[in-house]
Parts: sequence; structure tokens; C-alpha cells
Amino acid sequence: MNDVRIAGVGLTKFGRYPERTGRDLFAEAALAARDEAGISRGDYDEVHYGNFMGELAEGQGHQGPVVAEAAGLDCPATRYESACASAGVAFRQAVQTIRGGGADVVLVGGMERMNNLGTSEVTRSLAIAADELFEVRAGVTFPGAYALMARAYFDEFGGDNEDLAHIAVKNHANAMTNEYAQFHREITVEDALESPVVADPLTLYDACPITDGASAVVLVSGDYADENGLDAPVRVAGSGQGGDKAALQDREYLAQTPAATKAAEMAYADAAITPDDVDVAEVHDCFTIAEVLALESLGFYEPGEGIGAAARGETTRDGDRPVNLSGGLKAKGHPVGATGTAQVVEMTKLLRGDHANSDAVPDARVGVTHNAGGTVASAVVHVLEVMN
Amino acid sequence: MNDVRIAGVGLTKFGRYPERTGRDLFAEAALAARDEAGISRGDYDEVHYGNFMGELAEGQGHQGPVVAEAAGLDCPATRYESACASAGVAFRQAVQTIRGGGADVVLVGGMERMNNLGTSEVTRSLAIAADELFEVRAGVTFPGAYALMARAYFDEFGGDNEDLAHIAVKNHANAMTNEYAQFHREITVEDALESPVVADPLTLYDACPITDGASAVVLVSGDYADENGLDAPVRVAGSGQGGDKAALQDREYLAQTPAATKAAEMAYADAAITPDDVDVAEVHDCFTIAEVLALESLGFYEPGEGIGAAARGETTRDGDRPVNLSGGLKAKGHPVGATGTAQVVEMTKLLRGDHANSDAVPDARVGVTHNAGGTVASAVVHVLEVMN
Repeated sequence: MNDVRIAGVGLTKFGRYPERTGRDLFAEAALAARDEAGISRGDYDEVHYGNFMGELAEGQGHQGPVVAEAAGLDCPATRYESACASAGVAFRQAVQTIRGGGADVVLVGGMERMNNLGTSEVTRSLAIAADELFEVRAGVTFPGAYALMARAYFDEFGGDNEDLAHIAVKNHANAMTNEYAQFHREITVEDALESPVVADPLTLYDACPITDGASAVVLVSGDYADENGLDAPVRVAGSGQGGDKAALQDREYLAQTPAATKAAEMAYADAAITPDDVDVAEVHDCFTIAEVLALESLGFYEPGEGIGAAARGETTRDGDRPVNLSGGLKAKGHPVGATGTAQVVEMTKLLRGDHANSDAVPDARVGVTHNAGGTVASAVVHVLEVMN
Repeated sequence: MNDVRIAGVGLTKFGRYPERTGRDLFAEAALAARDEAGISRGDYDEVHYGNFMGELAEGQGHQGPVVAEAAGLDCPATRYESACASAGVAFRQAVQTIRGGGADVVLVGGMERMNNLGTSEVTRSLAIAADELFEVRAGVTFPGAYALMARAYFDEFGGDNEDLAHIAVKNHANAMTNEYAQFHREITVEDALESPVVADPLTLYDACPITDGASAVVLVSGDYADENGLDAPVRVAGSGQGGDKAALQDREYLAQTPAATKAAEMAYADAAITPDDVDVAEVHDCFTIAEVLALESLGFYEPGEGIGAAARGETTRDGDRPVNLSGGLKAKGHPVGATGTAQVVEMTKLLRGDHANSDAVPDARVGVTHNAGGTVASAVVHVLEVMN
């Protein structure tokens, strides 16, 4: 099995770009990643690309060839759609392709435009990630779905809005130094607690924003990296994917996310590590409660213990295992189809030591990314490692 | 590299099912494939699934988990979208995953609902496979785009509507015995020539219909097949993918499809065969001219020679190398996200000897499938072989 290494990464600043096109956003991230990698255009074998709602936001399907051309490449391109895990599954299949010998150099990334849609339109568009027959027709939207999960967690394990507020405060603080983040604004626990209720018990500051942006990573085989003397110090050591029923009503239990647990177990086994080996993590905090569920699925905490992690300072930048040093989806922003590879970009920089927040984890050698689709009906976990 | 074999295949009858759901259609095909394979539910590692316009036709994104549940499976599921090549790229990535050791048992397939949309709505929905900025805003629809390609071919190489009519006649004749085909109606060259012009020079009988349907294939590793004594006599010997610029205006030349040529060359090299070794082919004849371009990209004919193949009887059921014995997209129908794996289903049956038209190729050992997206901005070619 071929080793997979990260040769270059790129991001747009996340934010509101209703006047830009999706191909333009992706090109910016892709060219930044290509520039870092320094690999000649003709060596690229494939493009793997995540996008969630391009049909609705831009009237553009079949985006693979469109964004490959925008990135200056003329190789085959495939688009993946797994809701908010679209770029995560694209990344996983790019890894599988290199491992199987099908490619040596792959550009993988994602893009989402959301701010060109109106508020109710974007809420409706996001809802297509839920089950249309059994959830959407009954009025479910994503804030509502995650509110059900938060309520189930509170009922099962305890915890309250103040615990969740500490997660929002932590992630806003982390985003302050991240030039690519959508928000650069510190908030307090009081700010979060006093913010308007969106879907009880979740308030405005429990939710990530609506974001436009793109991310890109250049993956290469170990052989290619060695033969070409590339500076690619981070390798993809493990990959895992899990699935669950799309509709919450079809699940036995709403206070855990077994698809992510399965993805994590698979990724750890693949990398031959345990949760204790993980130094730093980027997790899918589309809502604050989602960060809690992620911490427990990743095996960092027993069920019911994750909710207090931020309040106890264990996942803050000064904690033992910082989580979402990028600012997370909460404060960095969440262009849904771009998030999976954006997490990989942030983690790669953290491990290489060239992230604005690398000083929080100077000795980090193992990082994990956790990307979820829908109400974690899809989950993808990757383990990145600094090479010796 | 692990060998990849086909353990089971399934289809719905293609046709008009505006009253059915997509998950219901996919379940029918998937359960038929699972039934043939006879593999226990718990052994399935992944679902790979192609769908093109589910957001527009059903308001349902994130279909991977939805269709996995409908198919009775609880493993991770990924949706691919590459326009009319959606299931073809899903199939290719399923092959790559097994080859790389990432899975032993994979359900791969596709589904499309189209007839619940009105005529102008479905035409607009299909158009999102073209370049929104540079083609769709200028009024391009797919009949128009393929008409440009047909006109370019006629201008460059000659040929006329009568040559194209022979392709439609051949594919309608082949569909007569295919119980899964949408059309069971023989037509004559005169019928085709007298049918209304859709986009000059293409007439109604040059175009495939609007189709609902689903297809599914169970892929297994060679090791798994051997250890479990499976009856899986057909193997995936070669896989290739090519890409081109999305917009016709960005290409140098409209009378050839280089993405398919690249995909074919890659698949032949992968299988260590030449075009001369191919006994039978299923190609992407969304329009009759597309079959001509496919024959030439597959290396069966020199540029300019493919247009007369059906008229000369070389690709008919009695010819040396029959093409589209299933009836092709033209007469079998074209539920766009399902077509790539539907071709694999038909080819598997032809090679196993249990297709209604297997008697036309009793000694066939090597078959090729050719699946295209957009105006062949995406192309996927696979080589299937009967094992000794």
C-alpha cells in the first residue's frame, strides 16, 4: 500500500462573497495549494472535489471539469456530495486512489457558495441534507435537528447552555489569530447565553455562520515525494468512514453519533494509534453540541464527559488537547462543501508549525480531523502525522 | 493490487415512474444485485452511488445514507455526481477502493428520477451539466450541444442523417428482447429520418428518452470471492477516466471526444489489452452522434470511420463487434445517474451468457463500457473480462 503525503495546502479567507463565482473561489485555494506543492501541471493525475449545493446556489452541476479547468489542470475530475462531509469523502477517496496505485498526484478540495442565497432559501437548501420524506416534509431544519440532539444529550447526561457557551467562546478566541477565519471577534459566556434562541436549547452563538469559501490540498504518493525531493512532512496515516440512517427518527438514540465513532475506530486502526496518541483535533462543530458529540465519538471522553471539556479548559489552546485551534466551523466559518479539506489544511499547518496557532501545540505530532454530513449520517475521520 | 470481481447485478425496468421515490427504485435494483450475490448484510463495507439531479427532482441531497438504508445496509455510503457519468465514476472509485485494500465487498449503483419534472423543467435541469456561465446563459441545452458536435463531425468527416438513423434502428432492434428496456418498438430508417427535428441536424430519433430507473452491482475482492466460493465469473480488468473542459467553446475541436480517448487508453493499458481484443461494447449513446464519437474514442474506428459502422452492419447484433446490445441509452433508456452501472449490469450478463442478447456474442470474453458526462467533459471506460 502506497504511503500518502501532503505536499501543499490552500484556503480562501472564509466569509461572504456573493459577487464571486464558485470556480473563482476554488481556483484561489487550489492555486495556493499548487504553489506550495511546486509540482508541474502535467504531473497531476486527478482532481477530487466536494460541493454540496451547487445546483441550488449556482445552477451548476457537473462541477468537476469546471473547477479543474479553473485550477489550471486538464486531468479527470470527480465531484463528491455528502452534505457537509462532501470534501471529507473526496479526501478519503483521493487517499484510497493513491494507496491503490491509481494516482501519484491528486488535487483534492471543496467549495461552497451560500451567501448569494437569501436566508430562508439557504435554510431550505441546507435542509436537503436531511431526509426529505421523513424529516423535511415534517418541517425539520438543521438548527432544529441539532436542537433535538442537544436536548437528548442534556436529558441523558446532563449539561446545559453554559457548557455549550464555553465551546463558542473557545472557538471564537481561537479564530482571532487565523487570518482565514470569517469572524475575528471575541465573545464572552454572557454574550452567548444572552444571544437569541434559534431552536431551543440552541442559541445564535451555538450555530456556525453561513459562509462562502474554498479549500484545497495536494496529495502525493510517498514514492513520488521521495523521487522528487518534495518537502511534504505530514502524512495521512489513517482514514475511516461511517454511516448512519439519514433520518433522526430512524435511529435508536440521539445523544451519540455512532457513524463518527465507527469512522474514528477505523481511522485509528488504520493508523495503528489510540485516542491517547492524538495531540490536537479539528472537529465538525456546526453547532456547539456537535463538538461535544465529536469529542466523545473520537474517544477523547466517555459519553457524557465531553460537554464540560471546554469549560474545564481541557480543549482550549492552553489545554492538554486543543480542539478547533482554527476557530472551528463556529468562528472560522463553514462553507459546507469545503469544510472537510479546510480542516486538513488547518491541521497540516498546525503540525508543520506554520499555523498562527501552532505555538499552542509546539510538540504536536498526531492530529485528527472529524467531518460530518447531515446529522452525522455521514462521518469521515482522518489521522495526520508528522514524519520523523 | 487486489483483483475486483462482479458478484451480482440488478436493474429496475427503465421507464416512467413519476409516482415512485428514488429510494424505492434504488432498493429494487440493489436488492436484486444483493440477491444474486448472496453475501450476508454484515459483510458489506461501503456503498458507492451515482445520482445527478436529486436536488432538483426530489429535493433530496445527501442521498448516500438514504439509499444505503433503502438497500438494507448500514455501512458508509458516498454519492458521486458527474452528470450522466455519475454511476461510472462511482464504479471506478469502488474499484479503486477494493484494489487498494480499503474494502472487500461494495455495493455500487445509481438512480435517477426525471419524469416527475415537466418537459421544460427537465431540459433546464439537464442543462446544469453544461457550463452555467459560458453555455447555459447563452441558451445551450444538451440537444443543441450535441447538434453542434454532429455538425462539426459532418463538416470534418462527412456522414449524414441516414448514417445516424441506422444507429437508432439498430439500438431499437436490440432493445426488443431486453425486458428492462424503456422502448420495445422497432423503427425503420424512414421513421427516424421523418421524425421531427429537435436541434438541427438531430431529430427525435437521434435522442435518448427521459427515463426513471436504477442499477446496482456488487463488487468483491478476488480474495473474498475465493474464500467464500462465490460464483463471480466476470472481473473488472481495466479502469480509466478522462476529463475535458466543461464548455464546448473552450475546446479546440468538437468532432472528437479526447476525454473518452484518454479514458479508453488508460483502461486498455490497465487491462493489458488493445481495442482489437474487445468483443462487445456498451457505449454512451445519449444521442446517435455520441455513439459514433464513442466508437472512435474506443479505438474501434479511425476518426471519420465510425459514422458508417451501423449502416455497414459492423456494430449490429450480427456484426463483428456488436455495440449496445442492451438497446443503448437510445432505446433501453437513460436515467442519467444510473446509466454507468446499468451498462456494467448489461455487459456482465452478456459475458456470463445470461442476457437476452447473449446469443449474439456466444464467444465474447472481453467487454467494454463507455460512460460520458456532459458533452464528454467527463468520461469513464471499464474493461470487463470473463475469467478462465
